[in-house]
Amino acid sequence: MSAVITLTTDFGTRDAYAASMKGVLLSLCPSATVVDITHEIPPQDIQAGAYVLCHASQWFPQGAIHVAVVDPGVGGARRAIAVRTRRHTFIGPDNGLLSRACARQRVLEVVQIADRRYALPEVSRTFHGRDIFAPAAGHLANGVPVSTLGPALSGWTQLPDLRPLISGDTMAGAVIHLDRFGNAVTNIPEPDFRAFVGASRWEITARSLALAALSRSYDEVPSGAPLAIFGSGGELEISVNCGDAGNAFGIRRGDVVQVVRKG
Amino acid sequence: MSAVITLTTDFGTRDAYAASMKGVLLSLCPSATVVDITHEIPPQDIQAGAYVLCHASQWFPQGAIHVAVVDPGVGGARRAIAVRTRRHTFIGPDNGLLSRACARQRVLEVVQIADRRYALPEVSRTFHGRDIFAPAAGHLANGVPVSTLGPALSGWTQLPDLRPLISGDTMAGAVIHLDRFGNAVTNIPEPDFRAFVGASRWEITARSLALAALSRSYDEVPSGAPLAIFGSGGELEISVNCGDAGNAFGIRRGDVVQVVRKG
Amino acid sequence: MSAVITLTTDFGTRDAYAASMKGVLLSLCPSATVVDITHEIPPQDIQAGAYVLCHASQWFPQGAIHVAVVDPGVGGARRAIAVRTRRHTFIGPDNGLLSRACARQRVLEVVQIADRRYALPEVSRTFHGRDIFAPAAGHLANGVPVSTLGPALSGWTQLPDLRPLISGDTMAGAVIHLDRFGNAVTNIPEPDFRAFVGASRWEITARSLALAALSRSYDEVPSGAPLAIFGSGGELEISVNCGDAGNAFGIRRGDVVQVVRKG
Repeated sequence: MSAVITLTTDFGTRDAYAASMKGVLLSLCPSATVVDITHEIPPQDIQAGAYVLCHASQWFPQGAIHVAVVDPGVGGARRAIAVRTRRHTFIGPDNGLLSRACARQRVLEVVQIADRRYALPEVSRTFHGRDIFAPAAGHLANGVPVSTLGPALSGWTQLPDLRPLISGDTMAGAVIHLDRFGNAVTNIPEPDFRAFVGASRWEITARSLALAALSRSYDEVPSGAPLAIFGSGGELEISVNCGDAGNAFGIRRGDVVQVVRKG
Repeated sequence: MSAVITLTTDFGTRDAYAASMKGVLLSLCPSATVVDITHEIPPQDIQAGAYVLCHASQWFPQGAIHVAVVDPGVGGARRAIAVRTRRHTFIGPDNGLLSRACARQRVLEVVQIADRRYALPEVSRTFHGRDIFAPAAGHLANGVPVSTLGPALSGWTQLPDLRPLISGDTMAGAVIHLDRFGNAVTNIPEPDFRAFVGASRWEITARSLALAALSRSYDEVPSGAPLAIFGSGGELEISVNCGDAGNAFGIRRGDVVQVVRKG
Repeated sequence: MSAVITLTTDFGTRDAYAASMKGVLLSLCPSATVVDITHEIPPQDIQAGAYVLCHASQWFPQGAIHVAVVDPGVGGARRAIAVRTRRHTFIGPDNGLLSRACARQRVLEVVQIADRRYALPEVSRTFHGRDIFAPAAGHLANGVPVSTLGPALSGWTQLPDLRPLISGDTMAGAVIHLDRFGNAVTNIPEPDFRAFVGASRWEITARSLALAALSRSYDEVPSGAPLAIFGSGGELEISVNCGDAGNAFGIRRGDVVQVVRKG
């Protein structure tokens, strides 16, 4: 069975970086199936990388190895880590990038990638994706155990919790992602929303927008009209049917999205 | 022999969507060769998706499975379909997206994808690419017959015909695609053009541009000069040598391109 | 062992072109592992294509076949070539595109791709990537020897040398690439720099920027501050920690970068 290795980076696809990692992976493990999750994470945007990695990685088969590189601290003091969960292994810098994806799975083991036998012979100062992370993944794909890469870690970097806050009749969430279509994805999971509103009337507000109903599909509202819907990640999204909610309403990542109970 | 499964979507590559589909495919069929045709179809642009799918899919090997998702009606009333032709199988929404590609091959069987045993256990309202289309493709790749996915359909959605119209000494076509280079691809096939002009003199017009000769290669005209050429899809194209015809002459998709016989 | 075939083009990923090449490759050689180096070379920019191909291709395993298509002269007089080196085989137009990558490896054999038995049955005027280069690669992957594709060539097109020039106490180099992060990569290799400056004090200048120290990692300077560093290709780079040196200092490809010895 060939290993599945995914890549999530902020390298883009116009430079040699992403392809160099694939060359290293295939040199070490020719039978690997290498899959791009994305290379379009905005440069140095660890939050965005953590979000996409979390939402994409969970769909991959048991045993998949996920390499993620959004790494402004490359070459400095930040550690390289490998995290083995019940389903997958994650490799990347210890800057929080891996934390959301791993929080969805049971973490079994975290090590610092330290043993230079599993890196390229020459390690550059600026490209550990090629020189450390890809080789580590290639060796894991060949059967090297995670524990061999370096010492076990008890603590590693976690991004802050993303749950919405409830205060009286107001649930305050935030836009955590704007996708290509301009859908504004919030941090409000469907079960949290349903438990909070119960049988009350309610209103969702974001910027100038107020919505008092949930849609079950985009085309339940006219083309160009806004709607609230639980999206494919299970979270509340603000969308425009056949349009771009981000552009239409000036919604940006980090914007507050409130759910207010009307009693 | 491993199955070849292609993806054509408007998901872009910066979100988790395209990769999630790949994860689902590889979970069901680990030996599949998954190939991106493109994820850069403009959002909700069914015509553009149909065009690219048609021109790319034909080059894939016998037995390839093409999954296409440009799906503004997701979660609503539109049906999910699978179309088996003499060479390939196509999977996607029944909104015309598959029709141009299938029109180039002999269609043997069309079914509605309805049996939830071949979908993911939970089907979202907004992402049937991951929850219905990719699983269906994975099962087909594993040998499930198309007829098992759901009931046979006698009718399905076709995009309107794209042939140029002839009226007297004028053949009226249109720009159906502007590619990355700014080449304006028309709906005028070479045989139609040759039959129409015969031995007459002729002129091709598009916006302010008039051309009275065909080129056999871009570099037959000076750098920066316009030309007419039969492109790699077999259709008349308006190009600029080492330049961008769309930008240089303000040509857009949908623009009329006329061939006028000069007697 | 399945063959690794890479693709480097200026086709972008929104049209059918790149995928058509993959379809042709998989039709001829179903077991091939096809890897995108990039399709985002700026249209007709042979220099940029040569740069990325050179830096990415070297990381691929022994026996890899690299297909590169940045081909403004397609359909005209330029030749199609295959270059076999000690490690890899390169296929593309004879316009210099392959020359930098091949210069890093020992060239064993160069042939003109001329035998139409190894092309598609119909060869278009505008898309030799699909009709000539991909089929040639597919046949090579199946074991056809390079020498079979056509006659041996003694000369082929080389891009001009990129070494920096030394005049007295000044080494004059140039920016040869701006990457996605805005790092300005120069043509000044670390050994050349070290040999030139020796034990002297020195200053690096580019546009309005002057730097008198090398950094070992981006985060050695404050966020937003400029630095000079030897990058992952072994060459001097001008960067901004967590920023974009190209934008911040107006640095463009072709800009002069000087190293001046201060005695």
